[in-house]
This record gives sequence, structure tokens and C-alpha cells, in this order.
Amino acid sequence: MEQFELFGNVKKAQNYLESVKSGRFLFSFVISYTETCEIPGITIAGADINSMKYTPPADAEYLHYGYCKTIDGIPMTPDGKPTPALLTKTALESASISHLTINAGSKITPQLPFIETGLSFGKNISIESAMTDSQVFSAVEFGRIVGRNMASLTDCLVIGESIPAGTTTALAVLRAFDYDAKVSSSIPINPIKLKNEVVDSALQRIDSDHPYSILAKVGDPMIAFVAGMLSSASSFSKIMLAGGTQMAAVLAFASKIGFNEENTAIGTTSYITNDQNANFVNLIEQIVDIPIISVNPGLHDSKYPGLKAFSQGFGKEGAGAGGTIISSMVKTGNDSAKFLNLAEQEYDRLSTLQ
Amino acid sequence: MEQFELFGNVKKAQNYLESVKSGRFLFSFVISYTETCEIPGITIAGADINSMKYTPPADAEYLHYGYCKTIDGIPMTPDGKPTPALLTKTALESASISHLTINAGSKITPQLPFIETGLSFGKNISIESAMTDSQVFSAVEFGRIVGRNMASLTDCLVIGESIPAGTTTALAVLRAFDYDAKVSSSIPINPIKLKNEVVDSALQRIDSDHPYSILAKVGDPMIAFVAGMLSSASSFSKIMLAGGTQMAAVLAFASKIGFNEENTAIGTTSYITNDQNANFVNLIEQIVDIPIISVNPGLHDSKYPGLKAFSQGFGKEGAGAGGTIISSMVKTGNDSAKFLNLAEQEYDRLSTLQ
Repeated sequence: MEQFELFGNVKKAQNYLESVKSGRFLFSFVISYTETCEIPGITIAGADINSMKYTPPADAEYLHYGYCKTIDGIPMTPDGKPTPALLTKTALESASISHLTINAGSKITPQLPFIETGLSFGKNISIESAMTDSQVFSAVEFGRIVGRNMASLTDCLVIGESIPAGTTTALAVLRAFDYDAKVSSSIPINPIKLKNEVVDSALQRIDSDHPYSILAKVGDPMIAFVAGMLSSASSFSKIMLAGGTQMAAVLAFASKIGFNEENTAIGTTSYITNDQNANFVNLIEQIVDIPIISVNPGLHDSKYPGLKAFSQGFGKEGAGAGGTIISSMVKTGNDSAKFLNLAEQEYDRLSTLQ
Repeated sequence: MEQFELFGNVKKAQNYLESVKSGRFLFSFVISYTETCEIPGITIAGADINSMKYTPPADAEYLHYGYCKTIDGIPMTPDGKPTPALLTKTALESASISHLTINAGSKITPQLPFIETGLSFGKNISIESAMTDSQVFSAVEFGRIVGRNMASLTDCLVIGESIPAGTTTALAVLRAFDYDAKVSSSIPINPIKLKNEVVDSALQRIDSDHPYSILAKVGDPMIAFVAGMLSSASSFSKIMLAGGTQMAAVLAFASKIGFNEENTAIGTTSYITNDQNANFVNLIEQIVDIPIISVNPGLHDSKYPGLKAFSQGFGKEGAGAGGTIISSMVKTGNDSAKFLNLAEQEYDRLSTLQ
């Protein structure tokens, strides 16, 4: 399929795509929170510090209902840049892919039925440990239970996430595990200096080389939980980690606790794999030998500046957009032009709700 | 399959069993609560009034982990009568059937990942309305969402429940909808007089013939939620309502809000269909023309008095036991003797945890 670019072991990637073609897909959307997002200037995932905690549940509600309950108005900036969940929703609906929301530490619970784990949100890693070791242990264990359950219901489990400032905790985890990571950001001018300052102060807290302890010091609950999901689910079904930097951090931690690489791939957008300020493909290759599948959603051709912005560095990826677009194209045979058309229809619909 | 007895439209029942034989099963375990159970003497689902709220989450934990977290000790009476969830667990494991726990108004949340709905528990119908009309509306709506989701993941969705004193609220709902119901009980000497007093006082509160209003006055959140699940899920997959009287009440309410009867069956144990003090088969036939499938789990032949007790009127059914046993036998071809053997192994294992 020419709308995909394959990196890493290309043969493996082709086999992976072939193997999921005729099967069932299920998307699990993991929402979480780290107080790290409250550091001024670190993220645009939310209009201001107080509103960021509403972003993950609002995205979950939008995926379910087509509108949000937790926030007033629509998930779009005043100048018309929508949540990346718009891409996810378009993908899921175009291919009739089911999805479930999982709360793994969101500060606000979404107003819809969701899988509850009872996990707490992560603390601000610039000033304190994100979690206790035992919270990491619980998150991994609960992830294993949910992963086993979800995988038994499908042939390909697609896992996406929403956690404001997740690229910062991901960067900290990657650097803590000694990977050379230049991470992407939801902002075109990546606040790299600020992120590195936060990460540097967090890394100083590390006093053990135990992976659970490291994650507790500098990570977030999403990374622990999704790694747990991956470790069990990859024994039962194909897994597509849908995302960029955050999923790289999941892989870094998961490779310490073990998972079945033969069933695992990472799927993202070309806005991540082409980001010259990051090194996504190289980073994944440092961590593990799994297929890296990148899709160009065609948004640079959009008539809407708000959608075009994704291709210009705003948002880039999130809420499992890349992986769900890939899954939808595998299932339906749609190309980027067709996807763009559907995304524009959804953009139209969402705009009229305002 | 000679271990099943078919009632109602026998031809439909045979077709139903044939149609689910080669498909996937998924069990959803709906836990809930009504304060009606706090009326002294109305139920044995829990050792005393304060402990009954722990029964549904403890059953859910036992199904997941093989032991309980919310309560100390094992889910068994001091004289060795286990929870009916033992039968459910044996069935699910023997056939590798996945399951998910759904919290639809349990007073205590289980210590495992579960689907959260945010619904409140029901009030004591002997003194006040169980719910507001708007709570019924929410429960049905959330049930529809969850049902659609679950049904899209499987070929046959089996729905079981755990709600202490659920037969009393079920009786009230059935009588409110003008069905002639003599309900079963988890106690061999059914406290019929007490139940009827409770129901009579609840029925006096009814001041509208709107089904939502009636359910709000005398029902419980489980009935509203499972009816919602049934109404959406039955459009997408086969549904087996797993239970006795409570599922009769679900059908009574669901027949007012609509569901696809062609995809629906009720599955229970022979301890319910043979109960001379109740009229289960006749009751279902009054409500709707769907297959009624009854299984004899063979427990009267058990060497353990605690298991034999089910065949003598203790427990009889619960936690989706009958429907999951039927599903497991359809999937594996096991007969009652084989099932009894597995249940005794699980009884052995559970007893040694004490």
C-alpha cells in the first residue's frame, strides 16, 4: 500500500500488514495525566493549565458521542485547529472499528462507560517522583489484565493514548534508559530547552537501575499501564502501538519487562517520521526490532487550514491517530485522498456544533 | 445436546444453539446493588446486612483472580456452600471464554479493571423510589453504549448479574408490568410473605404507566442497564441472558423499550426451571417468545455437600452460572459429568485457600 512508508525491518512490516488484513481490529484509548503538564509552556494540549486535565476525557467523549460532555464547546482551538482525535474518529468510523476507553490515571473521569483501573495520576517529575514503585507495579499488573482481556476479543489490538505533556515524561524515560532521543512536540517550535531542564532535574532523582524504580521517578502511569497491556496482549494477538514519542517510551520500558516482539508494530503519522527535529525511526530501532509503519494522512492538501496545520507541525499525532488511520486503510483499502475527504466531512460536522 | 432442556419455542432454541456453536463467546458480568437487600431476612447473598454490598465485587474479583480482594477469606459459607460464581468460573475457564466486569451501581467498586458507568445504587423499594426517572434514562443509555461495544467484539454476548435481593426488585417489576410471577429465591424456604409485603408497598408508589417511571419506582439499576445492553447488542450479535428471575424482569422492561428477539435467548439452570415454587418457564412465555435453555449442571451427584446444595435449592443460579455453563458446553462439547468434575476441582482449589 503506497500510502504507507515502512521503516526498520521492512520485510517484517510487510508481513505484519498482510497478517492483520483480514482480521478484526479493536482500538483501546488509554487516557491518563501527569502534573508535569502544569509547567507553564510545556504543552498546548489544552488552553491553559487548569483546562489540560479535561483534554483526555473530552477526547474520549468526542470519540464516543461526536461531541464533548466534560467541556463546553468543541475540541478545537479558537483559530480552528482540531484535536488529533478528529483523525482517530474519522479512521474508526470509516472502517467500523470498535473502541473502548481505559482510564489509567486521568485526573477527570470521562462521562461515558469506560474501563476503570483505579490508578492515580502522575506527579510533576520536575519536582517529585511521578509514582511510587508500588503504583508502577499496580499499573503494570492492571495493564496485563486489561491487555489479556482486550487481546482475546480481537485479532489486532490498536493502543492509543492521551496524556498532556506526555512527550516530556517520555523523553525522561527514554533518556533514563540511555536512549538518544530527540522527541517531537505538539508545538512546531518545540520547547526543547524547557523540556530538557525538566528532564535533567527528574533524572537526578534516579537512585536505582531497577526499571520499575526508574519509571516511578521520571515516568507517568500511561507508560506503565500500556507496557503492561503490551506484555500480556502480545501473546494473544497482533498489537499496534499507535503513537509517536510516548509509544517509544512504552517500548523502552516494555523491553525491560518483556513482550512478544513478533506480534508488535508501531504505527504513526508521517508528520512524526518526517520531523527533522526528532529522530523517531532511529530511536525505535535503538530500542527494538519491530515494524515501523508510517502513514501520510494527506492533510497538507486540505482546504481547511485547521487540518493542514497537522502537516505543518501542530499536533502531528495523538489519540492514536496514526495507528488507527493505518488500521482503517488496511481494513477498507482507502487511500490518503479518500481519508482526507472523510476527515474534512468530520471537520465540517464538528465546526457546525460550535 | 441431551444435557439441555429446551422450553418455549423448541425449534427456535435448537436454531439458536446451532447458530452460536462455532462462534466466539464473551461474558459480561454486571454488578449492582439495591438497598432493598438491607431488609432483614430478604436474602442470604452475604453473611449479614453490612457485608452484602461486598458480594458483587467479591464475585467479580473471584472470577478474575481466583480469589477475592475486597473481602477476607473465600466466597463460601462457613458450612461450605460456595458462591454460584464458582460454577461461572468453572464454565468460563473450561471453554476459555473471556469476560469483563461492568459496574452498574455496585456500592463497592471491585479491585480489578472493570467497565465503569458512574451509575448510583438503587434505593430500598419498601420505603422509597429505587431511582429517579432520569437515572433510569441514564442507565438505559449507558447500557446501550456498552451493549453496542461488547456485541461488536463477539458472536454471542452472555450477560450475567450479581445484585443482592435482586429477586425482590425483579418480582416488583414483573408484578408492576402485570405478569403473574412466582419468583425463585437463593433460600430453599423462600421468604415469600416478606417479599410480597415489600413489593406491595413498592407498587403503591406507582403513579404513571410509563415504563421508565415504573422501573424508577420499584426496580433497580441492573434491570435498566441490562435492558439497555440487550436493546442495542441484540442488533449486532446473539445474546444469552444468563440467569433466572432477574433476567425475566430485564425481559419485561426490555420488551417495553424494544430489542431484537430473533437474536435473544435466556439460559439458566435446571434448579430454576424445576423450582416447583416458581413458574419460570411460564413467566418467560408470558413476556416474550424467545428460546429458554436450561442446563442440569449435575451437582446432585457431587461428593461435596456444598455443591450438592445448589441442586437442593441453595443459590440455584446467580452470577450468570446457567448461561455460562450452557455456553461452555456448546463450545467444548462437555457434558454434565465432565462439568461436575471440573467444578469439584475448582471447589477443591478454593477450599485450600481458606
